[in-house]
Amino acid sequence: MQIIETIAGMRAWRKAAGRVAFVPTMGNLHEGHLSLVREAKRRGDAVVVSIFVNRLQFGQGEDFGAYPRTFAEDCAKLKAEGVAVVFHPNEAELYPRIRQDFNVEPPHIQNELCGAFRPGHFRGVATVVSKLFNIVQPDVACFGKKDYQQLFVIRAMVDDLNIPVEIVPVDTGRADDGLALSSRNGYLSAEERAEAPRLYRNLSTIRAALEAGRSDYADLEAAARADLEGAGWQVDYVEVRDAATLEVAHAGAHRLVVLAAARLGRTRLIDNVEVTR
Amino acid sequence: MQIIETIAGMRAWRKAAGRVAFVPTMGNLHEGHLSLVREAKRRGDAVVVSIFVNRLQFGQGEDFGAYPRTFAEDCAKLKAEGVAVVFHPNEAELYPRIRQDFNVEPPHIQNELCGAFRPGHFRGVATVVSKLFNIVQPDVACFGKKDYQQLFVIRAMVDDLNIPVEIVPVDTGRADDGLALSSRNGYLSAEERAEAPRLYRNLSTIRAALEAGRSDYADLEAAARADLEGAGWQVDYVEVRDAATLEVAHAGAHRLVVLAAARLGRTRLIDNVEVTR
Repeated sequence: MQIIETIAGMRAWRKAAGRVAFVPTMGNLHEGHLSLVREAKRRGDAVVVSIFVNRLQFGQGEDFGAYPRTFAEDCAKLKAEGVAVVFHPNEAELYPRIRQDFNVEPPHIQNELCGAFRPGHFRGVATVVSKLFNIVQPDVACFGKKDYQQLFVIRAMVDDLNIPVEIVPVDTGRADDGLALSSRNGYLSAEERAEAPRLYRNLSTIRAALEAGRSDYADLEAAARADLEGAGWQVDYVEVRDAATLEVAHAGAHRLVVLAAARLGRTRLIDNVEVTR
Repeated sequence: MQIIETIAGMRAWRKAAGRVAFVPTMGNLHEGHLSLVREAKRRGDAVVVSIFVNRLQFGQGEDFGAYPRTFAEDCAKLKAEGVAVVFHPNEAELYPRIRQDFNVEPPHIQNELCGAFRPGHFRGVATVVSKLFNIVQPDVACFGKKDYQQLFVIRAMVDDLNIPVEIVPVDTGRADDGLALSSRNGYLSAEERAEAPRLYRNLSTIRAALEAGRSDYADLEAAARADLEGAGWQVDYVEVRDAATLEVAHAGAHRLVVLAAARLGRTRLIDNVEVTR
């Protein structure tokens, strides 16, 4: 397994590599990331994983500084999975002028759901993913459904800007009690970790109600919010949306997604479930 | 010479093509474009020329509808130059949802010089060039210095977004009397055409003064503006700028560019000259 730190080195490797499958990450890898890597292995001759904590997608007061960095452990896991290349640029390699001058600007969806609470987040995601795609030039790239809105933005960007990369969505990895795997779970105290599966339980309750035919989305959202707030969570949003467009769903919609973000102590958790009915 | 109208067709051709040199155009080709094509031939195994009048870079009230479309004549010229492929998408191929949702947003320079008079123009240029690069996937692309600010924006974009395309600038083609070649010259009446070289004469006068050591840029700009206005032009700007950054030049600068845009009747002409001293 090679570790490549420069853009020029990455491009030189790329030329001889055949069909490349790419998994962009911010490191601190858990089983959810490894399921992306395994999907990538099925899709390409060689797998490239990038590890880069992207300052551009963190807002003021967010956890950029505290975000867990575990490069040695990450590399051991990726080597065991048979990854060909870890692309690990430093900030000066990706942002040599410190400020990013040109940005890929997503449409209004960037200001909804998580975007309403993280201004500029999806611009930062779209821009860094564009840069990484231009550097790695993969044939295919895998993204987790856990970051559902991110997956939506990336797919729309690739389509709208004619980026020649196939985007493969991968199901969310979960702990036995249902909690979605996330690097931010490491911030939770033991007590918070025991409480954390309540988020997924509420999403599952809404999914069951939707599958049973209910379309009173606002009532379902309010009940979940009340349950979480009653247990001490601060809820950013719980929303039923159209799975194809991420717009507010109409009453008869067949393909839905229920998305939520809520804070437990100082840790912000997100999750979602898809519903077909 | 092949004419390809679809994105899928363009990508399929690209895979077997070796080193590709690309010249994006809006058609109505003149000798200036053909000098770009000749430079491209020196740079690649195969030359792709795109012809697409890009609605996204025209403002309200600009000449999108009137812009000259001469596809058959353009193809005859390109065939004679030995071009391999003309990429000629229709609007639905490039903008299937009519609106472009994701845009490549340039930094503040997009609002200066021509950008101050054409809001959104450079966003439209950056976005369509990104799309065309993603479709054609050239190794190298040629742009004329006549659109100096456009060339600057494209070079900065490629650098900042790590786009794997080498940008080659090509000198401005000129008529015997100095007028920069432009599709928009076709809008001029015989009388206006006789008057039009005044723009380049004024730029040349400023160049001579700068080469002689003058750094009173505002005086030089004002004199050119007065000369043009005295001859019936409406002047958008005449500006001495730093050639490397396009920022306002400091007094001792060694590499300068003098840029101007002015309207003669209903026709807006632009031109520029570089100065090294």
